Amino acid sequence: MGAKFISEKNLNFLLYDIFDVERLTRSERYGQHNKKIFTMVVNAAVTLARSKLYPILDEMDKNGPALVDGKVKVHPQVRSLMAAYGEGGWIGSSFPEDHDGEGLPTIVANACRFIFAAANYSASVFPELTAGAAELILTFGSKELIDTYLPPMLAGRWQGTMALTEPHAGSSLSDITTTAFPTDKGFYAIKGQKTFISAGDHDGVDNVVHLMLARIEGEPAGSKGISLFVVPKLRPETGGKFVSNDVVVAGVYHKLGYRGAPITELSIGEKNDCRGFLVGEKNRGLACMFQMMNEARLGVGLGATAIATAAYYAALDYAMERPQGRRLSEKNPATPQVPIIEHPDVKRMLLFQRAIVEGSLSLCLQCCLYTDLAKTTQGDEQQRNLLLLDLLTPIAKSYPSEMGILSTSQAIQCFGGYGYCEDFPVEQYFRDSRIHPIHEGTTGMQGMDLLGRKMVMNNGRAAMLFVEEVNKAIAKATAVPETATYAGLLAQALERLQQVTAHLFGVAGEKGPETFLADATLFLEMTGIIAIAWQWLVQANGAHEAIEKGCRPKDLAFYQGKLLTFRYFFRYELPKTLGLSQRLMDKDFITMEATREHFND
Amino acid sequence: MGAKFISEKNLNFLLYDIFDVERLTRSERYGQHNKKIFTMVVNAAVTLARSKLYPILDEMDKNGPALVDGKVKVHPQVRSLMAAYGEGGWIGSSFPEDHDGEGLPTIVANACRFIFAAANYSASVFPELTAGAAELILTFGSKELIDTYLPPMLAGRWQGTMALTEPHAGSSLSDITTTAFPTDKGFYAIKGQKTFISAGDHDGVDNVVHLMLARIEGEPAGSKGISLFVVPKLRPETGGKFVSNDVVVAGVYHKLGYRGAPITELSIGEKNDCRGFLVGEKNRGLACMFQMMNEARLGVGLGATAIATAAYYAALDYAMERPQGRRLSEKNPATPQVPIIEHPDVKRMLLFQRAIVEGSLSLCLQCCLYTDLAKTTQGDEQQRNLLLLDLLTPIAKSYPSEMGILSTSQAIQCFGGYGYCEDFPVEQYFRDSRIHPIHEGTTGMQGMDLLGRKMVMNNGRAAMLFVEEVNKAIAKATAVPETATYAGLLAQALERLQQVTAHLFGVAGEKGPETFLADATLFLEMTGIIAIAWQWLVQANGAHEAIEKGCRPKDLAFYQGKLLTFRYFFRYELPKTLGLSQRLMDKDFITMEATREHFND
Repeated sequence: MGAKFISEKNLNFLLYDIFDVERLTRSERYGQHNKKIFTMVVNAAVTLARSKLYPILDEMDKNGPALVDGKVKVHPQVRSLMAAYGEGGWIGSSFPEDHDGEGLPTIVANACRFIFAAANYSASVFPELTAGAAELILTFGSKELIDTYLPPMLAGRWQGTMALTEPHAGSSLSDITTTAFPTDKGFYAIKGQKTFISAGDHDGVDNVVHLMLARIEGEPAGSKGISLFVVPKLRPETGGKFVSNDVVVAGVYHKLGYRGAPITELSIGEKNDCRGFLVGEKNRGLACMFQMMNEARLGVGLGATAIATAAYYAALDYAMERPQGRRLSEKNPATPQVPIIEHPDVKRMLLFQRAIVEGSLSLCLQCCLYTDLAKTTQGDEQQRNLLLLDLLTPIAKSYPSEMGILSTSQAIQCFGGYGYCEDFPVEQYFRDSRIHPIHEGTTGMQGMDLLGRKMVMNNGRAAMLFVEEVNKAIAKATAVPETATYAGLLAQALERLQQVTAHLFGVAGEKGPETFLADATLFLEMTGIIAIAWQWLVQANGAHEAIEKGCRPKDLAFYQGKLLTFRYFFRYELPKTLGLSQRLMDKDFITMEATREHFND
Repeated sequence: MGAKFISEKNLNFLLYDIFDVERLTRSERYGQHNKKIFTMVVNAAVTLARSKLYPILDEMDKNGPALVDGKVKVHPQVRSLMAAYGEGGWIGSSFPEDHDGEGLPTIVANACRFIFAAANYSASVFPELTAGAAELILTFGSKELIDTYLPPMLAGRWQGTMALTEPHAGSSLSDITTTAFPTDKGFYAIKGQKTFISAGDHDGVDNVVHLMLARIEGEPAGSKGISLFVVPKLRPETGGKFVSNDVVVAGVYHKLGYRGAPITELSIGEKNDCRGFLVGEKNRGLACMFQMMNEARLGVGLGATAIATAAYYAALDYAMERPQGRRLSEKNPATPQVPIIEHPDVKRMLLFQRAIVEGSLSLCLQCCLYTDLAKTTQGDEQQRNLLLLDLLTPIAKSYPSEMGILSTSQAIQCFGGYGYCEDFPVEQYFRDSRIHPIHEGTTGMQGMDLLGRKMVMNNGRAAMLFVEEVNKAIAKATAVPETATYAGLLAQALERLQQVTAHLFGVAGEKGPETFLADATLFLEMTGIIAIAWQWLVQANGAHEAIEKGCRPKDLAFYQGKLLTFRYFFRYELPKTLGLSQRLMDKDFITMEATREHFND
């Protein structure tokens, strides 16, 4: 049966008890599906994850990609994995059926993505990136591009990438210098350099398709002069031939973790023979890319949650089995040692991890549901779903990413010295998880996105909708004696958040945007805790209902464990908003005052 | 000149402005020294660290120890390093002069230890462990043991170790099963297994001397039946010969970080030919070992501080140089990008790191000073210094260890994607630092030590003395307008801590020790923040005095930076005690309620 890296029971609880995914099958878009199909899909994902991904977790980490003769060699299993992803329909799982997709709701497709990432994060990114790139082509590309690129990509024969970052332009995308020179032959000649391109090249596929940002020569500086191109590694020519498209791998990074996936540096058009094909309108590249980016951010949140979930189950398993020490009440040293799960401090560390991972998973799936609901609703209802999705995306990206580091670190701590050694997977999870606060927009960028953009867009309507949603859960929980106290705690925290927000808007007016956003990362942290508390209250409402309805005896401990973890979050994590709100409300703008001279010692 | 990994200016500020180390030279014990000598010693440490330790930081990480033909091979430079440590007097730096030591105060010796650890943590532990083991022999061993073992250990020719942990007895030391069988030949026959023994064997020395815990056959179970032995790898025989002492290396661990140091598994007496020599009284082994352990815990705190310090300077250097993005007020994309230190969020991350590392270093040196003062005072005054040292040791071990993970993680974040790659040292610092919450007593054990032992010993006198010390700093800062507000903030936090303590003592009476200690780790965290705030207030008082006295213009920015970082700690870190005290004051004992069944899903 192998090691446990996710809980199917918890996943089903979220999909059906909490988010009522079945309701989607009553819409036209998802009418061809039913719960049985969803269950089969999730089961198939678990099977693939157990049989092909988890077994090479350690190997892929220890034998990272290597640049050999200009080509990136990855683990030999990647080729058969890509084929399996293609054959199983995993790459196109949420694509429409008339484009070789499975037409699954985002929430079901992402539940599977979560399973793959928990089994082996590095191995899970190849199809994810391909799907994201393919979706961009499908949404914005010409029929010719769609017909040429989608089939081999969805079949897992061609890898897709997002080629944004350049050596001098990471968070500052508007500064890219890769240039597209117009020709009169239906393509652009591309020249430049890209760095940190995930799966930028590897021998597990026959071709690589970069969705690349570049500035068309002569177009304006900054973000408004950036266009999006398809830039293949090998370009298809008439007659079914392929020729090299002058995209050269200049290097592969050696990384702290996430070692199974090749992160590459690319040199493009060194021989002036690189062709790019415009996707979407000229100078609208950043807007197009952001469709993919928002999904990728949700994917990062899910990936971070997944790694921390696997670490949690490794720690739980160890804590159940490892004898060490005795209860404090036991003074006789001749009695046998107890499993460490008997120690309150170990239970605290386990509840911490569980509160993080199950809260994060719930929030990520909530965002997926909004995506699906936006696709099955119209007008104001659709707008509502889109606004909530927009508001929550930076949180769903960052909370799991930041807390994932602490959660995997606590997993190590449960193991003691053994956790620090390569004999157990937790040290790898700790390393793997550290990428998440960085890629697809750092936590700092997410903070500015949330406070500077999402909180104010549409006159703050998204923020109002969020408060409405939280209040719905509070109202429900208030009516039940067991949860009423906790509902009150969240109501207080939400009130604090609103005060902080009003205060910060005042700062914006008084001091300008830089001071307003100086502590945006902390605002993001505070909002994140409250969003997760909301998800925990929603889960508590669901668990309580299930118990009330009279669940099966073997499910009772699960629901009780849910309620216990929910209480943990409210008693140990939610109070962190006290310190954060105190900080955010004060007017000692220390970081605005600091200059580089202050750091000279 | 190479990369900066510590600030000599800050070290001098702490040693002389804050802790007035010169006062020690007015005591009989340290009367042979003066400030000039201390300065020369610190400078020599910096030179050794720069010339021999830092240059092999990366190499030692990448080429970890290997077990070859039963022997542990380490980096080839370790041998010349050990010789340099020996020749320079670094191993015996705080040993009395009549035992080949330098007779330096602990605070000066540890300032040097800090410098070595910041340059290359793995390389710094070899002499530390040797010094600790040698000190145990000197304090508790017979003249014969001292004469035989001390000279080659202090010369760096023989390695010392602490051999405590066994496969089934880590935190639960009282469960060790290594056995010492009495003989009538002046030694014991030792048999057993030890694990996680740092520097347990390596080819950089001629011999290894284990200070090993074992139970003499027939003695009581539990901690009261444990004795301490010297168990050499090669035992000296008459005529200057050495024979193998039947201590076999069964394995070397492959670790997340701290890879330059060999952590070994030992099999002892497999051929019934291992001889151990009793150190101190029979059955008093744990008490003896705890002398070394307390110093080792302080050493861990210093080591964690040192790694985070090096990471901070790497991040600072990068932030000063790396252009990325523009000020928010700058809308023109054609203007050059600014160094990232111009961004408030980056300044926040840097101030966070600096607040952690300079606060931690201050606390660690404060503990060293108490050690020295205890050696130069008598009676009640001595008792006072010892009690403060005892109380603060778990904090000085844990705060830097736990916060070191977050601090090195923020260093990575300052680098963005580059920080995740092996091209820069910060990813190694992040891995190296993760050992500290584990070794020499996990954070959970430190929490129980603080709340369950140190807070109540001598009827709570240590805790009262701590409050007195904090109040002294508060009184001084209250008298100065610039610091008065902050003094008030610390007074409030201290008041909260006293309320929490009283509440927890009530819980102890009502619910018993297990509930009392269930959240001891959080009590430790809260006390840690307050202890660091105290140290920052002491530093602010010192910086303010220096400015008032009229410092040199080039020092002014340093003192102003100090005051800014002090304010950062009070505005961003101290508020975390609000959430912690709320948690610690509530009576929802969730971890006591949780059973293993709740975790079944």
